[in-house]
Amino acid sequence: MCGGIGSRFWPYSRANMPKQFLDLFGTGRSLLQMTYDRILPLIRPENIIVVTNRQYVDLICEQLPEIDRSRILLEPDRRNTAPCIAWAAYHIGAIDPQASMIVTPSDHLITRESIFENCVARGFDFIERHDALLTLGINPTRPETGYGYIQIGREIEPGLLKVKTFTEKPNKELAQVFIDTGEFFWNAGIFLWTVKSIKDALHHYAPDLAAVFDAGTNRFATEGEDEFIEQNFSGCPSISIDFAVMEKADNVYVECVNFGWSDLGTWGSLYDNSRRDDNGNVTVTDNIMTYNSTGNIFMAPENKLVVASGIHDCIVADAGDVLLICPKSDEQQIKVMLTDVRIRHDNKYL
Amino acid sequence: MCGGIGSRFWPYSRANMPKQFLDLFGTGRSLLQMTYDRILPLIRPENIIVVTNRQYVDLICEQLPEIDRSRILLEPDRRNTAPCIAWAAYHIGAIDPQASMIVTPSDHLITRESIFENCVARGFDFIERHDALLTLGINPTRPETGYGYIQIGREIEPGLLKVKTFTEKPNKELAQVFIDTGEFFWNAGIFLWTVKSIKDALHHYAPDLAAVFDAGTNRFATEGEDEFIEQNFSGCPSISIDFAVMEKADNVYVECVNFGWSDLGTWGSLYDNSRRDDNGNVTVTDNIMTYNSTGNIFMAPENKLVVASGIHDCIVADAGDVLLICPKSDEQQIKVMLTDVRIRHDNKYL
Repeated sequence: MCGGIGSRFWPYSRANMPKQFLDLFGTGRSLLQMTYDRILPLIRPENIIVVTNRQYVDLICEQLPEIDRSRILLEPDRRNTAPCIAWAAYHIGAIDPQASMIVTPSDHLITRESIFENCVARGFDFIERHDALLTLGINPTRPETGYGYIQIGREIEPGLLKVKTFTEKPNKELAQVFIDTGEFFWNAGIFLWTVKSIKDALHHYAPDLAAVFDAGTNRFATEGEDEFIEQNFSGCPSISIDFAVMEKADNVYVECVNFGWSDLGTWGSLYDNSRRDDNGNVTVTDNIMTYNSTGNIFMAPENKLVVASGIHDCIVADAGDVLLICPKSDEQQIKVMLTDVRIRHDNKYL
Repeated sequence: MCGGIGSRFWPYSRANMPKQFLDLFGTGRSLLQMTYDRILPLIRPENIIVVTNRQYVDLICEQLPEIDRSRILLEPDRRNTAPCIAWAAYHIGAIDPQASMIVTPSDHLITRESIFENCVARGFDFIERHDALLTLGINPTRPETGYGYIQIGREIEPGLLKVKTFTEKPNKELAQVFIDTGEFFWNAGIFLWTVKSIKDALHHYAPDLAAVFDAGTNRFATEGEDEFIEQNFSGCPSISIDFAVMEKADNVYVECVNFGWSDLGTWGSLYDNSRRDDNGNVTVTDNIMTYNSTGNIFMAPENKLVVASGIHDCIVADAGDVLLICPKSDEQQIKVMLTDVRIRHDNKYL
């Protein structure tokens, strides 16, 4: 899934260059490319499909030249994750009705990828033996308020449990309680299921959405697919897969996993997941010189020299046409700034 | 005089674009152009001469297209102000031995220009009646430690006094004493004299320097001038006019003046001389948005959007290929930074 906007990383993420296309770690690979690299040992390349907004087709082709154009599904409108996943399921089902799927965001960070590989393999094994909607639950390491939590129920197999409840973004106190009980895991938004299981669930819990795609049954994975999507996709309700299916279905399971994971939802999470120098500064390019400055995260174009003195715990993000300087603790402010920028400049800097 | 480097305004001032060529106030006119505009009511345009380093000839021609190439004196080397002024005096003397001169830096700020005009007119009147080396002394408004001070002696005419001593950059306590006595004025580095008086003084107090130029007497203001300078200018001692002449001569006078003046020697002085918004921020372009930020000075290219939150009393200078963020109180640090930049990048960002 590669259609998000990621406005919280403004000014690096932009409407025409969202977070998933950015090389946030200065490794030479964007988050999308890192996601592709991570999936490649698990899925045959010709079975990797990208679903994105049509405005990003050139970026996808540029960043993932390995992916054939026929495997890039281009949404004409933004309709959240449920229609995106439904389309992918119908498309894959038209090619192979017995297929299993893994659904993954393209803008998250996963460390310890060998553990990830083992988890996914075990997850596939599970969903091929059960009519199961499986989500990966991350062992929480802190009372994070920005994530969704999964409460676990009965253990079916070692590390594979029934889901009891989902809770979106609890407050700090509740998040701490969640952690203390040992019953809650972070919802990574990575799902495994068979095409059959997810289509069944869509029919049962999101019949309006299923009806849109059922109308095109004989057109997926054919030359008529684009035209069908063009005419029908915008008729989908805009709804997340969590809300449409996962929170309602009774065959939802969680695989409790322990690889490093971050949704990189904020500058702070990028800071937390990046290598810091002795002064606690994160610098994505070599070209940053700091004096009496601690706890900052600096991003700038490769050739830009940044010299900073006497600033602490700030985001300094030079994105070419925009410079943002903002305390890390204040990054919620960025949404306010974006509104102000839109008032002054329309979409020019967004 | 237009040959300085002005490294304290880095990264805006650069080796190939020093301070005098910058539009520091966002008025559309550089400091050099502002200086030209200020002099124009006083001196016939064909009598305005620019002395600069040869590397800046294109900048001069671009910024002052009114000035004929024959009136731009191009120094092949940097030799401080005495050789610069000596050359100008010999050049002007070759055209008109009876001429009077005003010598002015091209990178200072003068406000209340009508007072300036009156002062200069009175100064010319004085030096045409006396064999006098006249400097303009600014009524000091604070115990500034970055300026030179002139101690006044006997009053010759109203507002025109003999100079008793020069003192370069006193410490804070001494500067305060200077102010309290009422006997000290800031040395603006603006001089008036006749060609005859300055040449006499050069012969007397800087005979080595005078000898260099005496050797070319019949070549100034001729086609042979460039060749003569090419062959001889580098042989001049590198010395300031203050040290070579003003601090030694016994016919030095000061005209005590009261127009607004700053040498714009630091980012802080630019801040002090710029219009501030309600939060005490100085923003040179329209394109700066501030949140919970006070006392800063922002410079950025016209099209760059700068969004700053939670920073106070800083210099934020985005010069395209370099971004500097530094507390105003810490700007002496800039020299250290420049050394570090040179070690890492040679002259690339200087």
